[in-house]
Amino acid sequence: MEKKRKFSAVAVTFGSCADRYVLSGYSPKKSFEEMLDGAKQVPDLSGVELVWGWHLNDDNADEIVEMIKNKGLEISMIIPELWSNSKWWKGSFAAKDKEIRRQARERVKTAMTLAKKTGCNQVSPWFGQDGYDYVFQADYIASWDAIVDGLVECADFLPDVRLAVEYKIKEPRTHNFVSTIGKVLLLINEVNRPNVGVNLDIGHALQAYESMAEDVALLKRFGNKLFHLHLNDNYRMWDDDMMPCSVHTLENLELLYWLEKVGYDRWYSLDVFPYREDGVELATEAIEWLKGLFNLLDKIGMNEIEKVIQLEDPIKALKLLRCALLQ
Amino acid sequence: MEKKRKFSAVAVTFGSCADRYVLSGYSPKKSFEEMLDGAKQVPDLSGVELVWGWHLNDDNADEIVEMIKNKGLEISMIIPELWSNSKWWKGSFAAKDKEIRRQARERVKTAMTLAKKTGCNQVSPWFGQDGYDYVFQADYIASWDAIVDGLVECADFLPDVRLAVEYKIKEPRTHNFVSTIGKVLLLINEVNRPNVGVNLDIGHALQAYESMAEDVALLKRFGNKLFHLHLNDNYRMWDDDMMPCSVHTLENLELLYWLEKVGYDRWYSLDVFPYREDGVELATEAIEWLKGLFNLLDKIGMNEIEKVIQLEDPIKALKLLRCALLQ
Amino acid sequence: MEKKRKFSAVAVTFGSCADRYVLSGYSPKKSFEEMLDGAKQVPDLSGVELVWGWHLNDDNADEIVEMIKNKGLEISMIIPELWSNSKWWKGSFAAKDKEIRRQARERVKTAMTLAKKTGCNQVSPWFGQDGYDYVFQADYIASWDAIVDGLVECADFLPDVRLAVEYKIKEPRTHNFVSTIGKVLLLINEVNRPNVGVNLDIGHALQAYESMAEDVALLKRFGNKLFHLHLNDNYRMWDDDMMPCSVHTLENLELLYWLEKVGYDRWYSLDVFPYREDGVELATEAIEWLKGLFNLLDKIGMNEIEKVIQLEDPIKALKLLRCALLQ
Amino acid sequence: MEKKRKFSAVAVTFGSCADRYVLSGYSPKKSFEEMLDGAKQVPDLSGVELVWGWHLNDDNADEIVEMIKNKGLEISMIIPELWSNSKWWKGSFAAKDKEIRRQARERVKTAMTLAKKTGCNQVSPWFGQDGYDYVFQADYIASWDAIVDGLVECADFLPDVRLAVEYKIKEPRTHNFVSTIGKVLLLINEVNRPNVGVNLDIGHALQAYESMAEDVALLKRFGNKLFHLHLNDNYRMWDDDMMPCSVHTLENLELLYWLEKVGYDRWYSLDVFPYREDGVELATEAIEWLKGLFNLLDKIGMNEIEKVIQLEDPIKALKLLRCALLQ
Repeated sequence: MEKKRKFSAVAVTFGSCADRYVLSGYSPKKSFEEMLDGAKQVPDLSGVELVWGWHLNDDNADEIVEMIKNKGLEISMIIPELWSNSKWWKGSFAAKDKEIRRQARERVKTAMTLAKKTGCNQVSPWFGQDGYDYVFQADYIASWDAIVDGLVECADFLPDVRLAVEYKIKEPRTHNFVSTIGKVLLLINEVNRPNVGVNLDIGHALQAYESMAEDVALLKRFGNKLFHLHLNDNYRMWDDDMMPCSVHTLENLELLYWLEKVGYDRWYSLDVFPYREDGVELATEAIEWLKGLFNLLDKIGMNEIEKVIQLEDPIKALKLLRCALLQ
Repeated sequence: MEKKRKFSAVAVTFGSCADRYVLSGYSPKKSFEEMLDGAKQVPDLSGVELVWGWHLNDDNADEIVEMIKNKGLEISMIIPELWSNSKWWKGSFAAKDKEIRRQARERVKTAMTLAKKTGCNQVSPWFGQDGYDYVFQADYIASWDAIVDGLVECADFLPDVRLAVEYKIKEPRTHNFVSTIGKVLLLINEVNRPNVGVNLDIGHALQAYESMAEDVALLKRFGNKLFHLHLNDNYRMWDDDMMPCSVHTLENLELLYWLEKVGYDRWYSLDVFPYREDGVELATEAIEWLKGLFNLLDKIGMNEIEKVIQLEDPIKALKLLRCALLQ
Repeated sequence: MEKKRKFSAVAVTFGSCADRYVLSGYSPKKSFEEMLDGAKQVPDLSGVELVWGWHLNDDNADEIVEMIKNKGLEISMIIPELWSNSKWWKGSFAAKDKEIRRQARERVKTAMTLAKKTGCNQVSPWFGQDGYDYVFQADYIASWDAIVDGLVECADFLPDVRLAVEYKIKEPRTHNFVSTIGKVLLLINEVNRPNVGVNLDIGHALQAYESMAEDVALLKRFGNKLFHLHLNDNYRMWDDDMMPCSVHTLENLELLYWLEKVGYDRWYSLDVFPYREDGVELATEAIEWLKGLFNLLDKIGMNEIEKVIQLEDPIKALKLLRCALLQ
Repeated sequence: MEKKRKFSAVAVTFGSCADRYVLSGYSPKKSFEEMLDGAKQVPDLSGVELVWGWHLNDDNADEIVEMIKNKGLEISMIIPELWSNSKWWKGSFAAKDKEIRRQARERVKTAMTLAKKTGCNQVSPWFGQDGYDYVFQADYIASWDAIVDGLVECADFLPDVRLAVEYKIKEPRTHNFVSTIGKVLLLINEVNRPNVGVNLDIGHALQAYESMAEDVALLKRFGNKLFHLHLNDNYRMWDDDMMPCSVHTLENLELLYWLEKVGYDRWYSLDVFPYREDGVELATEAIEWLKGLFNLLDKIGMNEIEKVIQLEDPIKALKLLRCALLQ
């Protein structure tokens, strides 16, 4: 019997993508409802991630939640906007300005309240503007103190809503504070609350020269902290936000193996920027690749893989993969 | 006697900068005239680079040229916009669509006409959207053919206007065609027109793991093709577009040495993205660093440097630098 | 009917590999004959690459050539040793010391003479020690002059022996002169001899953030200069010299497509460092992957791929690949 | 009054360096006594780091310790060899083979015993061979368990001898387990012994896209764990092991500022590979650079720097640096 996995995507997958060169977007703007209609066209997709502060706000929350429900979709994650308003230009949780830090925490709490109300029950803060660009710019210790404090405060605000922290090594700052799997776990450990874990963006892992599979294993080992998954792919130098599985076939297979092994049963959520692609087609194809790789795992067998890992002979492992993939 | 060098900046240095996260800009928008007023506040700055298609268009060209003249500034370079309109989403000079290719060439020719008229006499095309993101996406040979053809056509259109081609390894595409110093020289060689050379963006050089100094030397050796210079700095992984000299002190000094050695006497033009900095202060400080490093060169002496290079002993070279810099 | 392709490997694949931490080698040393015996155990392998100066020298050449012939193997390439003797510590073709430059050229000519005599008819020089580490160390222009001069002299020495120049961006120097596909083509163009082309090491391509497929296309376009192929794989940051196809499945498939498309019919030669793996098993498995990927190409069909490239829709291309690979 | 800082170097700085291309070394081999004589020639150098298993062994320990004392040098660190013998080819502390793990721990304990006896009192284990190269090769969880266990066992063996763990992102494995500042602190936190901290190799920090200054701050914040410092420099892509301060002037200055600020008062130890340079000259020049940069800090003033950091205006910080450096 095929295992049922839940697929989701950030809503903007079905909107228009912009970068610093084409600020007005590579394709025509879309309304939020049009994005949902896009999501609906993707077979196997049942969840969407919303950004609190973009798609959701104090005035429209009930209406938006209703709209999503009516489309037959679930909210897979609420992301508090902490990086796209120019007021965060020098940081959110780690801003030197106390009032800005307060606003950032309030925004997370508001998102948590809504997450509880809608049953989604999880919020993923990303401290994208918290970092530095130049030498002698940051007070590293004070910044880390502020992030820890803010996260504790939010965690305790609603202990039954999960906070899934996303890390990233660079962009938009040349150096972000919460940058690698090691640092995010260090942060989570100090915060030490059961409702605080990690949203693993595998593109960010690749960008930091991490093994996605090792990240999953470490998240298991250091407190079972894998709360959510952002899927995409890139060429390891930058967060290209490409279609999942479009670059790294075997490393994605190893990722899926470890997700299976540690018993991950939450969302498989696409976080992509289809600048020049059709979002519906990209999401559809991405899910087909993921399902295809899961089928490949089944075909090889978890036990066979476990055995070949214990042999510690990578050539035998590659033979096992090849026989399943190319024959 | 101090040598007179000409400093310039892209006009947007004095505007508002945006990235893919803060699309509306990190600071309030400014009019073109406000940007010029910013430029005027920078001591030693005498030129501005304009983007044909943004600051300049068919309707306002005379007026804008007059405005710049009245402010006492020169146009140091005209850059034909070939990357910020969504119509270039799949390329400009290398687009598969013949009509798009035609429009791209026309845009360069229009910029050339204006460059001639204003006496600036140079245009810098950057094929930022000409590249690819995924496997099996590009027809590499046809793309290179199209870029060569387009460049030849433009070069022959006005043989007394210089075309300074800018290269870059990635962004906005994950892979750009005209990506490295080697490839741009290969392109220039095949085009083989005296009015076609290179606009060396030293941040792009760093991003491609090139030595900025070696690039200057190669541009000299392979046809004296250094037509223009874009200055900024970064951490080698990405085109961070930071303040020139803010990261690589010694490598910038070696760059200036080679510029001096090969007799470069054109513009020193800042191409920066001051997302979170004041453009006037950044440009002012950048020029002070450049002048300071040139003074350091004078203090050490070109001959002394030449001698230490011939010794082929980098520790002696580092001693020479230290004695001048830290004593 | 399956196309016959010729597979080869550098002889050291079947020896012991060392790095700067384990200088005595990760496994017991082997004699040259033992290496050949290893090569013989690899099904489909018919060629070995030799290093002139290691396996071959003035005294043993006849004997070694005979030994290879008796084992039923061909010499696929002769590599003149220009990087492992400490006398090349400051360069070979670009050394400041004229006598060292002379010795380097002589070494290439001697290898050429033997290549002619044995019918292998090709020699692959790699200027691994020709580069620089520190600022103000290299005289870039003089170095390039010397490399061009040396290559012309060697090319003219025996015009019917091919010289396949290998490039690499770094290691053993932090910066090598002949570093990228662009620079090697620039060099080849200036040398301008029909017997001078390129040995494309695809690991070096990846290390320089190049597309292996685009490299093959450019080598075709700029003079049909792909003379030889070194296969391995890595994680893009360094020349890890891993088993071919062990990291980049789809990019290797695109590489094979372009090799087929441009009519490449020379050696597919493994250049790997099996530090902790068995060389025979690794080579055997590598060739199986290559054959498996070629079969996949056949299964999809060259025409289908060509069509999808012309569609310029990477999601459709990825669908085509997935259907062939995962169904 | 100038502050007295203690400078040291790894002994091999004064020996011969080899890499995977020149296995026999770039310069003639030297005896250990010749290396010490080299160290003695470096003004301001008072310490040497020894590798237990190379320079020191069970038979010669007393003699070597006496020799160092007679030369007027101190042992600044003892490094247990865990990576250069081929028996560690598949790991030391994380080896699957229990007997190998036992030998690795014993080796660290033996080094600790000697460190105690000689008064050096610190040992720096580096798990260089503990990692993986290919997908499906490592059992990440078991490997981390083994490293934690081994480190606890060693820490408890002699609680008054410091263990300064060195981390590195890659080489000799393509992926090392203890790879980044975040992961090493995660490890140290779990081990949770007062005598276990970090040996920060700043080249490894650069290779992992870390800020050296932020690393020092984090080591302070997360338990005051900076036990030792390895100084060198590189181009951020690889552990080039170049002369300290030869590439990153301003980032090294920020590093020194933070070392001063957190009250670091242990060794400043050079860990370099002078492949093509004279070790004595390189070490001498490196220490002059470090002293020169410390003088620059004094000239600017710690308070002035603290103030400019609090301003959160990197352009003002760069102006402060420029005025001190270039005027």
